[in-house]
Amino acid sequence: MPRFIVGVMGGGESATVEHCQMAYRLGELIAQKGWVLLNGGRPAGVMEASARGAKENGGLTIGILPDRDSRSSSGYIDIVIVTGMGDGRNYINVLSSHVILALPGQAGTISEIALALKNRKKVILLDFGADNLFNAYHQSGLLHSANTPEEVIEVINSIMQV
Amino acid sequence: MPRFIVGVMGGGESATVEHCQMAYRLGELIAQKGWVLLNGGRPAGVMEASARGAKENGGLTIGILPDRDSRSSSGYIDIVIVTGMGDGRNYINVLSSHVILALPGQAGTISEIALALKNRKKVILLDFGADNLFNAYHQSGLLHSANTPEEVIEVINSIMQV
Amino acid sequence: MPRFIVGVMGGGESATVEHCQMAYRLGELIAQKGWVLLNGGRPAGVMEASARGAKENGGLTIGILPDRDSRSSSGYIDIVIVTGMGDGRNYINVLSSHVILALPGQAGTISEIALALKNRKKVILLDFGADNLFNAYHQSGLLHSANTPEEVIEVINSIMQV
Amino acid sequence: MPRFIVGVMGGGESATVEHCQMAYRLGELIAQKGWVLLNGGRPAGVMEASARGAKENGGLTIGILPDRDSRSSSGYIDIVIVTGMGDGRNYINVLSSHVILALPGQAGTISEIALALKNRKKVILLDFGADNLFNAYHQSGLLHSANTPEEVIEVINSIMQV
Repeated sequence: MPRFIVGVMGGGESATVEHCQMAYRLGELIAQKGWVLLNGGRPAGVMEASARGAKENGGLTIGILPDRDSRSSSGYIDIVIVTGMGDGRNYINVLSSHVILALPGQAGTISEIALALKNRKKVILLDFGADNLFNAYHQSGLLHSANTPEEVIEVINSIMQV
Repeated sequence: MPRFIVGVMGGGESATVEHCQMAYRLGELIAQKGWVLLNGGRPAGVMEASARGAKENGGLTIGILPDRDSRSSSGYIDIVIVTGMGDGRNYINVLSSHVILALPGQAGTISEIALALKNRKKVILLDFGADNLFNAYHQSGLLHSANTPEEVIEVINSIMQV
Repeated sequence: MPRFIVGVMGGGESATVEHCQMAYRLGELIAQKGWVLLNGGRPAGVMEASARGAKENGGLTIGILPDRDSRSSSGYIDIVIVTGMGDGRNYINVLSSHVILALPGQAGTISEIALALKNRKKVILLDFGADNLFNAYHQSGLLHSANTPEEVIEVINSIMQV
Repeated sequence: MPRFIVGVMGGGESATVEHCQMAYRLGELIAQKGWVLLNGGRPAGVMEASARGAKENGGLTIGILPDRDSRSSSGYIDIVIVTGMGDGRNYINVLSSHVILALPGQAGTISEIALALKNRKKVILLDFGADNLFNAYHQSGLLHSANTPEEVIEVINSIMQV
């Protein structure tokens, strides 16, 4: 059986300290569940913090890099997937994740939420009000919300067969 | 000099008759300006209507297809770019367009708006309220709005050097 | 009906003067037939020469760029498709071409020949001995050879329905 | 430190029994060294055999799938990266591998060898005569040959800093 992969999306350089702390805690909880953490692999914001949280708690981390060179990855990533495809890699991030968590971010994060929903992937927003744009997906059961990292794990347990 | 390319995004099967009529008119106006129209290439909704509007008025149309086979393209597309990359092609749509117009659409369209803004491309929303999610981009001058196809052309003329 | 697209592949910076002259002549002949020329879009070697040959003879040229910025394209390209996907764009080059011509080149060109054959596209080698590697494809009728640009056009006419 | 990733390429449905046995043994040796095995992820030929060899000997396996759905992966893959990018994923295979091994294959395998060399990745051919096409790369030290799986490991040890 392939490993269960949780994609963690969110702001890079723009992420707040509070959201990085939530991302670290998410990584920790994902590692404790024995799941694999996947993110965009760069050493910034939610990516760095979530990978660190997983890594420092015995988890396995995968980073899907936009660049052509693995040296631009976060030091907390175990498996560096080098795509050379820029933001085209956002599509790979969501297709490869069994479920996607999104902390607040800017256009990059929003593109990942949108690509995930377009491809019928379940998305859980953590402290991120995604407004009216995605309302239809709330109603269809693809889009969920949570207020804390712990609640994210509960939602995953309730909506996924893991 | 390369040709000036206007990307037209918006709903596929979900597009309303009214928005398809706007898309047709946009295609017509783009053709009359001598610009090239680019879209996602499929025979549905805003893609089909905008390509038809351009084609029936002497314009040149490019479709960036998600599939591996050119036979899935709209009959109003002159140049079929076959990517075989699924929604990964949305990134190519926005990078290849000098400016992006977005009519209302669902997650696919939202992903294109987000990828465009992420890559510092100017986006004009036509009859599409993109809510608070993209507020920061309104303020930075990347995101614009218009109410009619004619107004879209005015905005392009004012924000682009064409 | 979509336009008939001929992909022209071959060396970049490594191309010889003689092969650039052949590429120019190929571009000229493609333009005279009313076909569209597609290549990798960069201002070097076979790409630059073939685009120039087509452009100076009234043809339409498309360049599929590896980079994220249209400014790196050849000045003889009309339609710049900006993929941001590095050599991942080689796959798009071959899927988008109805037939592929290959002048001598290095690993980049060989990857395009291989990707074309893998995807059942017809390939014509011009002055390029592709050795034993591709023998099976000669026998199956996918891979053809020619000695001059004029002969390439004859082969296209005989193997494609144009 | 990211894990050291060895890419194993070679025939799918066309692979011989002998080459599948070599692929299994390669997977076994890679696992014993503590390296990560990466391949194209499909349940066929060299991909299936190499993943099985690694998995049955305690290794970690990554499959980079061309399709949009993880269900098409080999059962011996731990981490399924779903690209949705068809053969465009061949570029990701080679960029993500620190060194690439190629058993005999057809156009798909040749495209991976070519893309690897184009991107300055070291390639080791196992029982695969890649003819004159790639001669220049033999001379520059990027392309190597081996006759047995054990010899492949020796070559990796001598050319890579692992």
